[in-house]
Amino acid sequence: MKSEDPIEPRLPRGFRDICAQDLILRRRMVDIIQKVYFRYGYMPLETPAVEFLDVLGKFLPDSDQPEAGVFGFRIEEQWLALRYDLTAPLSRFVAMNKDLPLPFRRCQVGPVWRLEKPGPGRYREFYQFDIDIVGCETAAGDAEICLALADSLRALGFADSEFLIRISNRKILNSIVEMALSDMETDQLTRYLQSRRRDRMQLSGNRDRIRESYIDDIFRCVDKLDRVGIDGVTDLLGEGRLDETGDFTPGCFMKKNQIDYILRFLQLDCSTRRSFLADAAKLIETAEGKEGLAELETMDGNFSAAGYDDAVIRFDSQIVRGLAYYTGPVFEATLTFPVTDESGRKVQFGSVAGGGRYDSLIERFTGKKIPATGASIGVDRLLVAYSGRVEKSDSGAPAALVTVMDKTKLAEYIAMAAELRRAGIDTDLYLGSKGIRAQIKYADQNGIKVAVIAGEDEFAMGQVTLKDLKLGASLSAEISERDKWRKEQPAQIQVPRARLVEEVRAILKRHD
Amino acid sequence: MKSEDPIEPRLPRGFRDICAQDLILRRRMVDIIQKVYFRYGYMPLETPAVEFLDVLGKFLPDSDQPEAGVFGFRIEEQWLALRYDLTAPLSRFVAMNKDLPLPFRRCQVGPVWRLEKPGPGRYREFYQFDIDIVGCETAAGDAEICLALADSLRALGFADSEFLIRISNRKILNSIVEMALSDMETDQLTRYLQSRRRDRMQLSGNRDRIRESYIDDIFRCVDKLDRVGIDGVTDLLGEGRLDETGDFTPGCFMKKNQIDYILRFLQLDCSTRRSFLADAAKLIETAEGKEGLAELETMDGNFSAAGYDDAVIRFDSQIVRGLAYYTGPVFEATLTFPVTDESGRKVQFGSVAGGGRYDSLIERFTGKKIPATGASIGVDRLLVAYSGRVEKSDSGAPAALVTVMDKTKLAEYIAMAAELRRAGIDTDLYLGSKGIRAQIKYADQNGIKVAVIAGEDEFAMGQVTLKDLKLGASLSAEISERDKWRKEQPAQIQVPRARLVEEVRAILKRHD
Repeated sequence: MKSEDPIEPRLPRGFRDICAQDLILRRRMVDIIQKVYFRYGYMPLETPAVEFLDVLGKFLPDSDQPEAGVFGFRIEEQWLALRYDLTAPLSRFVAMNKDLPLPFRRCQVGPVWRLEKPGPGRYREFYQFDIDIVGCETAAGDAEICLALADSLRALGFADSEFLIRISNRKILNSIVEMALSDMETDQLTRYLQSRRRDRMQLSGNRDRIRESYIDDIFRCVDKLDRVGIDGVTDLLGEGRLDETGDFTPGCFMKKNQIDYILRFLQLDCSTRRSFLADAAKLIETAEGKEGLAELETMDGNFSAAGYDDAVIRFDSQIVRGLAYYTGPVFEATLTFPVTDESGRKVQFGSVAGGGRYDSLIERFTGKKIPATGASIGVDRLLVAYSGRVEKSDSGAPAALVTVMDKTKLAEYIAMAAELRRAGIDTDLYLGSKGIRAQIKYADQNGIKVAVIAGEDEFAMGQVTLKDLKLGASLSAEISERDKWRKEQPAQIQVPRARLVEEVRAILKRHD
Repeated sequence: MKSEDPIEPRLPRGFRDICAQDLILRRRMVDIIQKVYFRYGYMPLETPAVEFLDVLGKFLPDSDQPEAGVFGFRIEEQWLALRYDLTAPLSRFVAMNKDLPLPFRRCQVGPVWRLEKPGPGRYREFYQFDIDIVGCETAAGDAEICLALADSLRALGFADSEFLIRISNRKILNSIVEMALSDMETDQLTRYLQSRRRDRMQLSGNRDRIRESYIDDIFRCVDKLDRVGIDGVTDLLGEGRLDETGDFTPGCFMKKNQIDYILRFLQLDCSTRRSFLADAAKLIETAEGKEGLAELETMDGNFSAAGYDDAVIRFDSQIVRGLAYYTGPVFEATLTFPVTDESGRKVQFGSVAGGGRYDSLIERFTGKKIPATGASIGVDRLLVAYSGRVEKSDSGAPAALVTVMDKTKLAEYIAMAAELRRAGIDTDLYLGSKGIRAQIKYADQNGIKVAVIAGEDEFAMGQVTLKDLKLGASLSAEISERDKWRKEQPAQIQVPRARLVEEVRAILKRHD
């Protein structure tokens, strides 16, 4: 070990360490959400980080290549992967446990891993908190998921005006795109396929699959509305889009009347659930679309019955969701106020949770349809918004530091620390090798509130000195008031050793 | 998706799903331990699951091949790995954060992954809860870790007679082995190397490294004392050991007088800390051994100062710990009572936590010695013991189920569920497609206590029926008492709809 060159301590791209304050806050946030999920009857489950690659499948948005986006690896002749979400493992779990009483409500919180391009605030390991209900085929299940999301955001202290649950339905979107494509010409598909340089062998002779893939791409374009705006979507649906950096994205080669039909849907009045339902009904003609609309009608009724109005939950034609496996209602939770991000900038935050119905996912295993719906909270994103909200955030620092003036008296200091701990006071005992000044600096750096000091004099008199570090800090800050403060509330006092616990408590009480 | 053959839902060997009850219990246990660690000033940290392979290094016990035991994989031209413990990532973290105020106390809980042979109760993904103190060079740090372990076990409800913190010191062990080998002949090393078929090129010309590796193997033999007993260790140190299955493990070819010296140390009287210190002093002659003994003297003083006697913390010559990187005190927490394992058998549980001082590990990165010591609790193992202790264990099931008799009245049922939830009662709304009998069975299977039932009659009268499912279950169990019970506390009552919340609360109160 000693003869080798030092190894550079470093983390792989897209990974990070999370420190005390953020962890404590995340724990608090997760506990609050967990309580809401319990309130709705969702039971916790923990699946492993590692699964078989084929079991997870590949349902990530925005990625054409198989396995792209997934941390896959070969171990003992088998292809394994780190889970990229919590939905694929849930599907596997349900398929493996055939005796599970249905409907099965479960929640799961934990890290997922994606091999995507990391960036500011975008990590390759991030936390999700999912709820899902398996074995419920009606839209009442979808409605419940939305209620639980709304309750979670309320429980975290967000006002009704600060978030919105926005809902659409893949059946309606399908219907709109089908209607738009009713006058599609072969030429359109050919140009599309050529522009994508799609492996035509893979799709050859299978017009249905070509069409399916075409429609998926149209959805993907519409899903970019947030980022590129109506003009951008118009370009993407048409001949293609040139972005600010000069990159060109080929379009879907839809005709003007087709695009117009889709844009008309995207610009429907969504200010109330009833107005959306009424206006959408006028545009939708297919049976599937009407089914989708009826599901939203049901959900509207459920929301009203539970007491949630348009201020909190709305229908929104612009919600698409990236994942290909959604089969019915899709939803997103959006924060409506600007959030200060890690780098201190105010940003419109957008989606902090999303989900939808996926009635065919479990069928991959069972060959039998098992309906399911659910949502996933982006814990790290939401935490940024939540941490801006919490008044005093707990640094996790201990309350007191027992300093060590005289190393030969260590037993005395240990006894003091043990006494304070037994009294329920989080206490650090200084175990480094530096002097008292450095020890006080160490306490300040760690956010410790009280330093316990005892040297020769104190031991001789059966006393200890207590230094109020928070008061000390405010004294240095307001130097003009210094003498006044010193008289009224001295930052440093000597007290009998026997009264250690009470006196430390008294100082801590000042700063509660 | 539909045209393909179904995929078999399955988990890779050594991985498992953890369900509600165990998760809730684990959370409770972890929270209790966390509180103790906070009491001692340890701050939480979370490092990622994925690290660079060379950064983690390879310090697993019982394994000679590089990378064996580690989930390593190549992504984007780089060798990565899942962390196999929380100590290697901590060392990397400390080396990366040069401005960290020292001593740095951190705790971390989370899964680690090991590519080892899975077996009953042995998984490839398991939880550890670590505390470490970095930048403390004195044995007071080691003593503090032991105190925090003892306090954790006490906080979990284990009596002082039910566990033991057992401590030894690598410096003493080194000294004993060095003394034993003082008359070593070249022949001994040659036989050892031949029996292991060690790559002699790797070690060739480096007598020091051969000797180091030889001593490591001697430690490994002694570390097997728990499993193979004194006779087994005698064989392993000597010519080799034939186990019950007929497998032969080559020995270390030590001579009888050498083995006897080691056995004398292993059989020292460890009943009190003072007796161990007195007896060990007679055996130890090297400077390193005396240093180790002085460290244990310090720790003994610290334990006494903090009020922990021999009933809880002892010195024990049989503690070795498998890891090669320990440089000073090593410790283990052992449960002293038989635990009922997953398969219902009573087993002597042995170690639930272990650790030690590793003063050279961070040096791998920094080139500079940064002393550190710490311990790791085996969360899953300890959970098995803890769960045997907890009186009522929370299944995580919701308290109430609102059943659905008439699907056209769903809005009414949703309103009831919303009302109960707002009143703080965890409530499930039945969203499957089955009838009322199946719904009651579903409630029983899930451990739900109260079913809310409303059909045509109830709606007409403005009433709801409440069924006390726990009482119902005890009624069926004690069938002879049935009529008596029915009169006094009927399992099913009708109450006004307006009193839903109060009446459900009243039933739940019976079962608190």
